[in-house]
Amino acid sequence: MKTMWAARRIDYDGTQIRSLWAYRTFGLQGDSIVGFQGGCEIPFDHMVDLEDVRAKSRIASPSMVHFIVEHFDLDLEKAVLRQRVLSALVRDELGSGVRREGDDLFLGKGKLSISIATLTPVSSKIHFGINVERALNVGVETAALADLRVKPLPFAKKILGRYAAEMAGVLDARTRVRGVP
Amino acid sequence: MKTMWAARRIDYDGTQIRSLWAYRTFGLQGDSIVGFQGGCEIPFDHMVDLEDVRAKSRIASPSMVHFIVEHFDLDLEKAVLRQRVLSALVRDELGSGVRREGDDLFLGKGKLSISIATLTPVSSKIHFGINVERALNVGVETAALADLRVKPLPFAKKILGRYAAEMAGVLDARTRVRGVP
Amino acid sequence: MKTMWAARRIDYDGTQIRSLWAYRTFGLQGDSIVGFQGGCEIPFDHMVDLEDVRAKSRIASPSMVHFIVEHFDLDLEKAVLRQRVLSALVRDELGSGVRREGDDLFLGKGKLSISIATLTPVSSKIHFGINVERALNVGVETAALADLRVKPLPFAKKILGRYAAEMAGVLDARTRVRGVP
Amino acid sequence: MKTMWAARRIDYDGTQIRSLWAYRTFGLQGDSIVGFQGGCEIPFDHMVDLEDVRAKSRIASPSMVHFIVEHFDLDLEKAVLRQRVLSALVRDELGSGVRREGDDLFLGKGKLSISIATLTPVSSKIHFGINVERALNVGVETAALADLRVKPLPFAKKILGRYAAEMAGVLDARTRVRGVP
Amino acid sequence: MKTMWAARRIDYDGTQIRSLWAYRTFGLQGDSIVGFQGGCEIPFDHMVDLEDVRAKSRIASPSMVHFIVEHFDLDLEKAVLRQRVLSALVRDELGSGVRREGDDLFLGKGKLSISIATLTPVSSKIHFGINVERALNVGVETAALADLRVKPLPFAKKILGRYAAEMAGVLDARTRVRGVP
Amino acid sequence: MKTMWAARRIDYDGTQIRSLWAYRTFGLQGDSIVGFQGGCEIPFDHMVDLEDVRAKSRIASPSMVHFIVEHFDLDLEKAVLRQRVLSALVRDELGSGVRREGDDLFLGKGKLSISIATLTPVSSKIHFGINVERALNVGVETAALADLRVKPLPFAKKILGRYAAEMAGVLDARTRVRGVP
Repeated sequence: MKTMWAARRIDYDGTQIRSLWAYRTFGLQGDSIVGFQGGCEIPFDHMVDLEDVRAKSRIASPSMVHFIVEHFDLDLEKAVLRQRVLSALVRDELGSGVRREGDDLFLGKGKLSISIATLTPVSSKIHFGINVERALNVGVETAALADLRVKPLPFAKKILGRYAAEMAGVLDARTRVRGVP
Repeated sequence: MKTMWAARRIDYDGTQIRSLWAYRTFGLQGDSIVGFQGGCEIPFDHMVDLEDVRAKSRIASPSMVHFIVEHFDLDLEKAVLRQRVLSALVRDELGSGVRREGDDLFLGKGKLSISIATLTPVSSKIHFGINVERALNVGVETAALADLRVKPLPFAKKILGRYAAEMAGVLDARTRVRGVP
Repeated sequence: MKTMWAARRIDYDGTQIRSLWAYRTFGLQGDSIVGFQGGCEIPFDHMVDLEDVRAKSRIASPSMVHFIVEHFDLDLEKAVLRQRVLSALVRDELGSGVRREGDDLFLGKGKLSISIATLTPVSSKIHFGINVERALNVGVETAALADLRVKPLPFAKKILGRYAAEMAGVLDARTRVRGVP
Repeated sequence: MKTMWAARRIDYDGTQIRSLWAYRTFGLQGDSIVGFQGGCEIPFDHMVDLEDVRAKSRIASPSMVHFIVEHFDLDLEKAVLRQRVLSALVRDELGSGVRREGDDLFLGKGKLSISIATLTPVSSKIHFGINVERALNVGVETAALADLRVKPLPFAKKILGRYAAEMAGVLDARTRVRGVP
Repeated sequence: MKTMWAARRIDYDGTQIRSLWAYRTFGLQGDSIVGFQGGCEIPFDHMVDLEDVRAKSRIASPSMVHFIVEHFDLDLEKAVLRQRVLSALVRDELGSGVRREGDDLFLGKGKLSISIATLTPVSSKIHFGINVERALNVGVETAALADLRVKPLPFAKKILGRYAAEMAGVLDARTRVRGVP
Repeated sequence: MKTMWAARRIDYDGTQIRSLWAYRTFGLQGDSIVGFQGGCEIPFDHMVDLEDVRAKSRIASPSMVHFIVEHFDLDLEKAVLRQRVLSALVRDELGSGVRREGDDLFLGKGKLSISIATLTPVSSKIHFGINVERALNVGVETAALADLRVKPLPFAKKILGRYAAEMAGVLDARTRVRGVP
């Protein structure tokens, strides 16, 4: 799969989760993971997780590293599993102080990340965002890369490479076993 | 999904990876993860990973904690993704000295674990085994729970619970998002 | 799967067939069957069955027991098979005077029920409605639970339980057979 | 789908559940339902339902009407749903004294039928057998078409036609609805 | 599958690619291939191929033979494979001067055809259009049936029959092989 | 996908159709097309097409160019569609005197090729063989590359490249279209 770091600032507003965003925006075609930095503010009518809609959560952050993943299959359970693997990779990169619970990462009581996986008519998509600075007024205590003294760009580039390598490893594992009775 | 710890010693010989082993052996029906302790010695004709067959690897250990996972679907890529999630859970439980590379766990240079995911005619299966004591004469340097002063039984029971909770979380995430354009 | 009887009157207008209606409305998450009582009047632009659209049918009833089923998979043929099973369960509950033809139930010449199965972007849905009182001016002769002296609430609660039990039985049957050559 | 009544006596021994039996035996190709009459005696190593294997059940009958169904897809849950629909059709044909519980039919306390659904490497299969005469020495009370004064041949031919019509109806329902949001 | 030639002129404007167009327009239900003759002019917001959108291509022709194919499954890769088979059939019909490259046909440097395959919420669709007369002002050199002295109607009817026969042959091949280890 | 020409002579005997043959034999992992030259003689118990088994056909040739294709998915209809595309590519390469009927190629009345597509427990496979010299005593009139003055090796290498390019094109087409309503 393809990896890309978008050098310019992009604010995540929930439109990047739509199908073929990487192709429309960058001409990047096929399975991909794209990283970029920018704010996050998701209007209610762009929210995908109905738990947030029901809770009238505010999802916002002044600055995040965002990852947008697209795989061209239509299996939401598989997309969620990939999201968990991505979360585990980020946790591994950030080290032992960080705790993964499902698709969320925590530093102590502070929530480091937000994430969603969903389907488009032609693909499955993941958004994973991690605070560069702490977010305020979002109804939960937050933490940020700044608390860990992690610089966004080198961190993001490592994750792009590790996710692509992990997915290549999954394909490798899928193509060398025989079936059993 | 169901979880079970099999109190009696069971040596893993590659037959436990077959379909419906949990149901045949314990009457445990449906998606499940079963843990047990015992040796490991896989005859060549039971080997599932053709990389091992081609390399004429010896896969053996005097004592391992084994996990056998069965999901009643037929998607090998999904099974490998679940295997990665299981590996990440074990790594989290064992702490920051342990390193995950794909489905393998390492302590320094020592390989802690073996794992395979494959298909049966009616389900997908995962075997994940972790050394209780170091294995000798297997062609690679090994490490073990003993090196980490981790006791097999409490460790295994935590993993059984965490894997089942993670899969419940995956289902939860899969059933509360709307699609996007 | 989850079952629920919605105590308040709800008129079916074709919006209840959309994805995640049970979660949005009641916080009921996952595979579910929800029953409720209310009128039925489906505007043309909410009609899902294009046969009705082509025929310019009026689909309406003063009072029906409605069932809304959601399964989080994307196989329309499977959804239609589940719809047939639900129809058969209702027929069994109503007794031998009632006749099933596909997804429709009849009492003599009178049509007792309406039903549709379709896909959302994240799930498959079934609507099954059965007249509590006869509908007039809908272009076909109708019959109703009143003709059978069946009380809506106890009937509905039995169906909710039987459908959930039948789907549990399907899962049970799916997880105890071996494959054959 | 194709329907066929095999005029000669065939004893069901568990080999008819294998893939392409209708094509190998009669040259009948594609999705099909084949009916025949004959005894039933299934050796343990041909048993497909592991509940029977675990219970060491004897599955036998002196004379049954058998139906063998093959659909060329690989979804066991769908095969079980079709099995339930077939059971419901048989129940409808036999009338109100007969009770369906999952895939089993009962007349009072007597079990009328046996059935299994499973996967082959290229298709899904159903066996449904109904006693023409009561079976003895099988560990459960049985009932038979003879108790209902139902003649095997006309009964079987009706079921062949009704199952094929029902599956055509499922296809019809699958190809005339639009999706919903 | 069903075949139909629509006698009246229909201009392709990108709405015919939507789900159930054949059923809405002609009452033609189920898998089908429909042929018709007419112009082609696709507004930007009806374009399905984002390569065209990105390139701001003009897709237009004064007169084409169009084929609209619908299969009621949801596998886009399979739809593209069928599109390639359809292209190969048209090439075979037009003879050795015509060259197939993917889904495009060429006569020398002139592009003879346009095609797209995509998904609807309930089906997969193919549009394949071949110039009856050359198109001008579309940014590429074009060729047409007129250059080959091929008459639209007999040509179209042959393709309708050959595509349906090929798909029947695919089904035939799918239902007579056993699996292998 | 990977392509490979096996320089040494290999006689096709029906074992090459099994899963992971390319990996076991050459270490070639993942989706692949392998070409080789050698005789062909398939024992009855290795035959996969039950039409041949029923007809007691002899399938044999003194020298063929063989292609073995493996894709790691489990959809037999898709495998047959890929087989048709491969046949069309071979036809295009051999020129206008050659005629494709389904998966078979003919030169006049002479049959040039044999082919089968089937499933393994972990993949789908295609065998496509084309006579280098005419086969005798096989019950049908045959033709061969020799009749066309086509040299096996350059021909085979072109097909390997064209098939891989076509499959890359299919993936390309699958990842740049949006869905439609």
